[in-house]
Amino acid sequence: MALSEYRFRRRVQFYETDVAGIVHFSWFFRYMEEAEHALWREAGLSIHPPDSDIGWPRIATSFEFVRPLRFEDEFDVHLRVAEMTKKTIRYECTLTKNDEQIASGSMTIACVRKKPTMQGIEIPQEIADRIRAGR
Amino acid sequence: MALSEYRFRRRVQFYETDVAGIVHFSWFFRYMEEAEHALWREAGLSIHPPDSDIGWPRIATSFEFVRPLRFEDEFDVHLRVAEMTKKTIRYECTLTKNDEQIASGSMTIACVRKKPTMQGIEIPQEIADRIRAGR
Amino acid sequence: MALSEYRFRRRVQFYETDVAGIVHFSWFFRYMEEAEHALWREAGLSIHPPDSDIGWPRIATSFEFVRPLRFEDEFDVHLRVAEMTKKTIRYECTLTKNDEQIASGSMTIACVRKKPTMQGIEIPQEIADRIRAGR
Amino acid sequence: MALSEYRFRRRVQFYETDVAGIVHFSWFFRYMEEAEHALWREAGLSIHPPDSDIGWPRIATSFEFVRPLRFEDEFDVHLRVAEMTKKTIRYECTLTKNDEQIASGSMTIACVRKKPTMQGIEIPQEIADRIRAGR
Repeated sequence: MALSEYRFRRRVQFYETDVAGIVHFSWFFRYMEEAEHALWREAGLSIHPPDSDIGWPRIATSFEFVRPLRFEDEFDVHLRVAEMTKKTIRYECTLTKNDEQIASGSMTIACVRKKPTMQGIEIPQEIADRIRAGR
Repeated sequence: MALSEYRFRRRVQFYETDVAGIVHFSWFFRYMEEAEHALWREAGLSIHPPDSDIGWPRIATSFEFVRPLRFEDEFDVHLRVAEMTKKTIRYECTLTKNDEQIASGSMTIACVRKKPTMQGIEIPQEIADRIRAGR
Repeated sequence: MALSEYRFRRRVQFYETDVAGIVHFSWFFRYMEEAEHALWREAGLSIHPPDSDIGWPRIATSFEFVRPLRFEDEFDVHLRVAEMTKKTIRYECTLTKNDEQIASGSMTIACVRKKPTMQGIEIPQEIADRIRAGR
Repeated sequence: MALSEYRFRRRVQFYETDVAGIVHFSWFFRYMEEAEHALWREAGLSIHPPDSDIGWPRIATSFEFVRPLRFEDEFDVHLRVAEMTKKTIRYECTLTKNDEQIASGSMTIACVRKKPTMQGIEIPQEIADRIRAGR
């Protein structure tokens, strides 16, 4: 059955913090991507198999920040496949700590053929069979 | 006179690329922030002076990606102060390479008093005197 | 009983790779530090408690690289406390994948009092009681 | 004439700092590599040209840290080609701020043929003609 969401718990690493004493905002996009790749693995896929002809460039992404994360905080990442079109996937992501909202984000990726030049293509059926938009 | 924009040229570093052969998307947010801090310096300010009582957490940010950047590419970052309210600043940012659009982003920051607990405050006058929204 | 080593398994994240298709070498130092902080937690300590008067700057570190790591590889990090002097701790670290050696590193940290100026001090007894050099 | 050293000045970025208020030690290796790649460019080369058959994996690297760097500090990086063998290059690197020593490092890289399997090869003559060990 196709997967439409993924959750994992993670701890803030020292190198993710900045001089303001909190996680640098650029890391939230990496946390969201970690969840994406884990969802694909859980679905039996890799988003970047060796020597693959297709790729998944990011088209747009955003985050809204509500509360900061600090060194050694444990937090939860919940990623949901919000929408799938013929050629794109849009995720929505929520970060929480002890059930308090930390941040929420979204990311849209497109399926492309890499060669001869990068060009948008339809998502292969074997991938659409394993990942689907949730309700 | 108050500053409302900043431009700089930068080169892609090796450690900013990923196995897809392009700059990892999380770096665009760092490029935008580099421009922000350079704008503040150009305006005679630091966004994080030692022992300051106030801070500037990021409230929301987004990017749309049009073309990739690759190792050693030179590109231009143009940051503009799009809006200033009593308590927030919103930037808009464009990345280009040889006048071709690479990506465009935005970022909203808020002025906060750090202690005793983090709380939104009005932007100090000496900062509002040096940074202003462009037209 | 004082701890002298720590092991954990970890997966290579996409943003840790570079255009050469392998993990960028700067990440190995972060993997080693992740193990260090996990060892401290396992020993009931934090290397950076909020508002602590002491700190642990890195004095020297090195790595030798034998085989590369690639996207989604799982690998093992083994950190050992190789030596403790009155004021410093030296770790040795080995990374392996399926029992094949990937890299080996070392790191020496010093205990410092942060204020009024940073200065080396003796390691507090409550820390020395919880972390010790292995044989 | 072959190049044997390179110097550049750089400013600490916000995202390079950590919660201890200083540049995270993993960044020093990236600063050293920035200098390496700039030296190669100055010598008319790229260390990673598109579609190249050869690569330059890092074999060993180390740093000793004397003084910390902080947000917005300007510092100087001096990289020197300390030794070239038939198949390897060893660099030495010094970081200073206002002529005070910050840190010193070294890095050894090897020339490899990438396919069919990664294997050490002799440094191509056109590269040896442009980069040489200093005295």
